[in-house]
Amino acid sequence: MSEVKESTIRQMTRLANEHCAVNLSQGFPNEAPPLDVRLALAHAVVVGQPVEEGDEGNHHHYNSLLRHLSSMSMSSSSETPSEDISDSGGGLSSDILNQYSPPMGRGDLRSAISAYYKRLYDYDVDSDNITVTLGATEAVASSLRSLGKPSDKVVIFEPFHELYPSQCRLFYLQPTYVTLRPAHDNASWMFDPLELEEAMKDARLLILNTPHNPTGKVFTRKELQIIVDLCLKYSVYVISDEIYEHMCYSESHGHILLPQAFPEVANLCLICNSLGKSASATGWRLGWCIHPPHISDTFRGIHDQLVVMSPHPVQYAALTYLSLPDQYFREELKERYQGRIKLLAGTLQELGFGLTPVEGAYYLFVRYRNVKALAYFDSPMEAAMYLLEKVGVACVPGDNFYGKAVEEQGNQYLRFAGCRSEADIKEACSRLRAHLG
Amino acid sequence: MSEVKESTIRQMTRLANEHCAVNLSQGFPNEAPPLDVRLALAHAVVVGQPVEEGDEGNHHHYNSLLRHLSSMSMSSSSETPSEDISDSGGGLSSDILNQYSPPMGRGDLRSAISAYYKRLYDYDVDSDNITVTLGATEAVASSLRSLGKPSDKVVIFEPFHELYPSQCRLFYLQPTYVTLRPAHDNASWMFDPLELEEAMKDARLLILNTPHNPTGKVFTRKELQIIVDLCLKYSVYVISDEIYEHMCYSESHGHILLPQAFPEVANLCLICNSLGKSASATGWRLGWCIHPPHISDTFRGIHDQLVVMSPHPVQYAALTYLSLPDQYFREELKERYQGRIKLLAGTLQELGFGLTPVEGAYYLFVRYRNVKALAYFDSPMEAAMYLLEKVGVACVPGDNFYGKAVEEQGNQYLRFAGCRSEADIKEACSRLRAHLG
Repeated sequence: MSEVKESTIRQMTRLANEHCAVNLSQGFPNEAPPLDVRLALAHAVVVGQPVEEGDEGNHHHYNSLLRHLSSMSMSSSSETPSEDISDSGGGLSSDILNQYSPPMGRGDLRSAISAYYKRLYDYDVDSDNITVTLGATEAVASSLRSLGKPSDKVVIFEPFHELYPSQCRLFYLQPTYVTLRPAHDNASWMFDPLELEEAMKDARLLILNTPHNPTGKVFTRKELQIIVDLCLKYSVYVISDEIYEHMCYSESHGHILLPQAFPEVANLCLICNSLGKSASATGWRLGWCIHPPHISDTFRGIHDQLVVMSPHPVQYAALTYLSLPDQYFREELKERYQGRIKLLAGTLQELGFGLTPVEGAYYLFVRYRNVKALAYFDSPMEAAMYLLEKVGVACVPGDNFYGKAVEEQGNQYLRFAGCRSEADIKEACSRLRAHLG
Repeated sequence: MSEVKESTIRQMTRLANEHCAVNLSQGFPNEAPPLDVRLALAHAVVVGQPVEEGDEGNHHHYNSLLRHLSSMSMSSSSETPSEDISDSGGGLSSDILNQYSPPMGRGDLRSAISAYYKRLYDYDVDSDNITVTLGATEAVASSLRSLGKPSDKVVIFEPFHELYPSQCRLFYLQPTYVTLRPAHDNASWMFDPLELEEAMKDARLLILNTPHNPTGKVFTRKELQIIVDLCLKYSVYVISDEIYEHMCYSESHGHILLPQAFPEVANLCLICNSLGKSASATGWRLGWCIHPPHISDTFRGIHDQLVVMSPHPVQYAALTYLSLPDQYFREELKERYQGRIKLLAGTLQELGFGLTPVEGAYYLFVRYRNVKALAYFDSPMEAAMYLLEKVGVACVPGDNFYGKAVEEQGNQYLRFAGCRSEADIKEACSRLRAHLG
């Protein structure tokens, strides 16, 4: 059983809390999801049913929730408010939204996901090929189990999110790594197409993550073309983890939806997504997978058997999230994180950290060996512990993101998350300057 | 990929909706979770933080939620209410409850689960050996993956919940069945200890479910002693699915907590539980696993890699659930379902269905061959479709619950769920009488 250990990322969060450090380790925000979306969820839970027809105007969840709360009978002596059931339309109204949904997800939600891709990408996807999952995590797990059998090879770009190889091992798949390296001018992260082809030759699957955690790389159309060509040549499925899709900071690096830009590979493509990062709701566990039609039954069966379904009231709230105005997806998220990343990047660079520009997502994956106070730490964990204990800033040691190139590459890096509140980022910068400047 | 198919139980729910039938197929209630628990969840989502200290009196979530809602700035022209942030105590308050929790679950929740076992069973369990899961479903999945390696044998009593063998196959484990049969007087369901021993000899795991779905059997202390002895003799781990623990209807059949009643087997015991059934919150996805200390790290690693964590706001609400008064757990649930089961059982028996007394859970697993209108249907699916289409009542065909004894046993049964509202149960009874009487 020794193969399984505590996630280093979450270990750093735990240590950050213990040391009262500013937590720039684990990638989760400390700002709330959009208010309308929260109100929709609260409504679902309290009322148990969708908002009534004819009640769709402004603030409809707010109004309905408030009306329902106000109708409760309160007795100061009793422990529990009680519901005036006769108020809700005669007879027992039955609860729907706190109970099982279809395992594949509510029909209206799957339609809304389809409409979201139409609206934002002009991409047509049939809701029969969409399954609502427990976040992108479960979407990737169910994809791996749907397509891979024990000892099948899975190509993973390193540095990687630790869940990819861990999940491969859960299902007895064999991760194989292709290393991203900074270009000589440090302007971007690159892979060697020959190294990739070598890995793809006898692989069953490739996991793609763009915008990429931890490097901030956004894969270019040219790079995706190379990947697509190899997928077709060797019949390799792509699991595309797109949870940072709206966090692309460069004009020339917009998010590219693989099966739309390269329809020839659509039948080999599984898109995994989630509202965790983009709705600031990492604790809600709602994501989805778009699977090619010939995989749909298998995927849904496995998803059902593994976890049954995503929380039903959250599914209802996701309808509100998916209908947020274009501006939220196209501008607001980008603007929120761009400033913080710039601030953090500027500070780190000034202090001697080596940076490659962040094109997307919200992490800074930086070389620490030129920072005087950190230069002599042989392992990134020692450097991270120094920052945690002496500086009061938590980050993640870079070797955690590597498989085969730990020695060559991984031992030089630390990852900082730029997704915490502006106040937190500023505090972290001021602590870093005070101790390392 | 042909091994995976749509769950028959959920297929029947889908068909029930299509045919406007009373849905007694899938086992989920249509009454809401306790109001206080819903209010705690709504509070968590809207406010993002635990209720403030000094605010723990009566109706504290209600009051805090209402105060927060009232403080919102509403503009009739705007699409969205907005929060008066300065109102919440100066400076940006940070969101906690909508974001990641520790993957193993909130510390206070794991302590509350420990306190629940102390209060209701006088059983001591260290919260280090408790992990909060995405319902009992994921608890069983993570247990299977933690303990079994490919081709390991897993003993399952049949009839069984379809998820057990499906989950075994997800992780390449080999289900092996031990058949429960009605005693000659039909007073209870029995297993043959020799058949069990034969299956246990080279098994790694046994899945126990008591109170039992679909039969309603509650395993007796004598039967559990036989199981425990075999587990010790052959070093077999027990995964105990206890989601119906509070639904035991007979004085002589209280729920027995395995590691408490038989401490000698505690190190081989994993207890899986959930608030889905007992809080009427099947859509919330919160459960837990109590694992022996030497399994804890492995279990938590696998749980984390598979799904990360249970929804954080639901974890907060579970604190309120676990502190409901004794009466809720000891009497209220039992009383709620006992009457419905009696009504349904009486009607079915009158119409010629063969019944074995329901000792626990909330299902009726009945023999249909003596009912004139159904006698000639060779497969339970045909009988179930007749009831669905002609009578307007949905149930689940019994063969769905069998592995090896389908022909001998499984083709005689239908399962009705007695957990729907009293109005629904009455309507179902009246439809059954009208068509089959």
